Amino acid sequence: MFEKVALIGIGLIGSSLSHVMKREGLTKSIAVSSRSAETLKRAEELGLGNAYSLNAADAVKGADLVIVCTPVGACEQVAKTIAPNLQAGAIVTDVGSVKSSVIAQMQPHLPDSVHLVPGHPIAGTEYSGPDSGFAALFENRWCVLTPDKATDKAATAKLKLFWENCGSHVEIMDAHHHDLVLAITSHLPHLIAYNIVGTANELETDTRSEVIKFSASGFCDFTRIAASDPTMWRDVFIHNKDAVLEILGRFSEDLSSLQRAIRRGDGDYLFDLFSRTRDIRRSIIEIGQDVEAPNFGRDETEE
Amino acid sequence: MFEKVALIGIGLIGSSLSHVMKREGLTKSIAVSSRSAETLKRAEELGLGNAYSLNAADAVKGADLVIVCTPVGACEQVAKTIAPNLQAGAIVTDVGSVKSSVIAQMQPHLPDSVHLVPGHPIAGTEYSGPDSGFAALFENRWCVLTPDKATDKAATAKLKLFWENCGSHVEIMDAHHHDLVLAITSHLPHLIAYNIVGTANELETDTRSEVIKFSASGFCDFTRIAASDPTMWRDVFIHNKDAVLEILGRFSEDLSSLQRAIRRGDGDYLFDLFSRTRDIRRSIIEIGQDVEAPNFGRDETEE
Repeated sequence: MFEKVALIGIGLIGSSLSHVMKREGLTKSIAVSSRSAETLKRAEELGLGNAYSLNAADAVKGADLVIVCTPVGACEQVAKTIAPNLQAGAIVTDVGSVKSSVIAQMQPHLPDSVHLVPGHPIAGTEYSGPDSGFAALFENRWCVLTPDKATDKAATAKLKLFWENCGSHVEIMDAHHHDLVLAITSHLPHLIAYNIVGTANELETDTRSEVIKFSASGFCDFTRIAASDPTMWRDVFIHNKDAVLEILGRFSEDLSSLQRAIRRGDGDYLFDLFSRTRDIRRSIIEIGQDVEAPNFGRDETEE
Repeated sequence: MFEKVALIGIGLIGSSLSHVMKREGLTKSIAVSSRSAETLKRAEELGLGNAYSLNAADAVKGADLVIVCTPVGACEQVAKTIAPNLQAGAIVTDVGSVKSSVIAQMQPHLPDSVHLVPGHPIAGTEYSGPDSGFAALFENRWCVLTPDKATDKAATAKLKLFWENCGSHVEIMDAHHHDLVLAITSHLPHLIAYNIVGTANELETDTRSEVIKFSASGFCDFTRIAASDPTMWRDVFIHNKDAVLEILGRFSEDLSSLQRAIRRGDGDYLFDLFSRTRDIRRSIIEIGQDVEAPNFGRDETEE
């Protein structure tokens, strides 16, 4: 599909892309770039690319696809760095969980001769770094592309095909709308998980060790989410501030009502809410986004 | 171990107990009781007991172990109902997620000749009803017993052995302390999950269907928790009100600080918190309460 793909950043997503591109033969060569000498060395040991560079500007020379796999907050600096060396006609994309901010950070610095098609593979684990990648990460996951009206149709189509070859289903969406939907499906859940684990972390030592001991009763699922990469998530919240604060505001209002219902002993309120929330679960199972097995996220260990 | 065990209530826990008691030969006979004729009929079809009764008082006759497997809010009524028919020396226990309230509800009604040893198997799935049980539910899970100083030591030891035969690790704990620890490890996570799924449920129809579509990005884990039995959880929050409100208060304070940090764009605050929360995850993996596999609760479906 491509002559040369440049991966700017080689963490979980970058290294997974390397694995799947090689498995599927999607490019003749891969140039890997990282600002960290240690990470770059490790990427080379793992054989994730054909060339390695500390400078993103070197990596993009001659690339017909550039994939920015850095935390969202680094996009502007990357755009500035790579702009002079981009090949005319190249597709520039990214993998960030926030899209409006990425466009605002990158677009002004890129030459008109390249096609910016922002992307977001909705796939991840709580692990990070070049060792954490695996070729199957994107299989049957959604990848959202957020081109605007001016974006070259052929570039969008080619990038769509690329992600389909990585195993993903591709959805085209407005960047602003993407940021709102992800604020509730992803950003708020991560924020809440970080917060509840943080609250537990502040408990007295004795209680804290018991919390760890009895974590399987629900808390454990939150700790998994709250073990996600701190840099990536710091950037997500800073760069999707408006949508996150909007959704967090609604969440807090609802939580206040729930708190009052508990204080008043209003069982009917609780029962009604707890019954309604079952419907969304059913819808998710119906469309095949999760399985019905009663595992509670832990079947694989004990049952 | 026992001549006759009476299961008062035959949902997920009751039916799982029936399966494991039969597999391990822990009792000569099982009497099943349910207030619902439909549930009782289904339990009989599934062969979960040797006798079936709509009246708990009938079921406990001649039983040397009575296990109350109803929602926590039904315990007082059950205690009143069964008290006249309890056999001298019988062990009476329960499986509720709240312990102080269960003791307060049951102890005053029980004759001095029986031994109340409250219990809480920390095991469950998001399914409920007599069809949802399976013998392995308690394997390698904790079961907390909360006898007080006056409780017969032999009765506690026998019940401990019973749960060990069901595959559980048994911990003896003060009832009040149990309620506080579970408020953070289990009750608050469930409350938060119900709340976030409830918030999503209130969104406009278009956004709501996209939330379902892209649920794998984090939200999905919450919907699984929020699909748990509404009656059981209504009772947990009503009957562990003080501990839940205490922990919820701390959670809300922390969430306000986090919200302010996002509003101010305070990346250092976010990064520090998100780094600290990783430590708790590591502790949980170290003591073997969860595995290190990067599955995000979904490996079994796609990877």
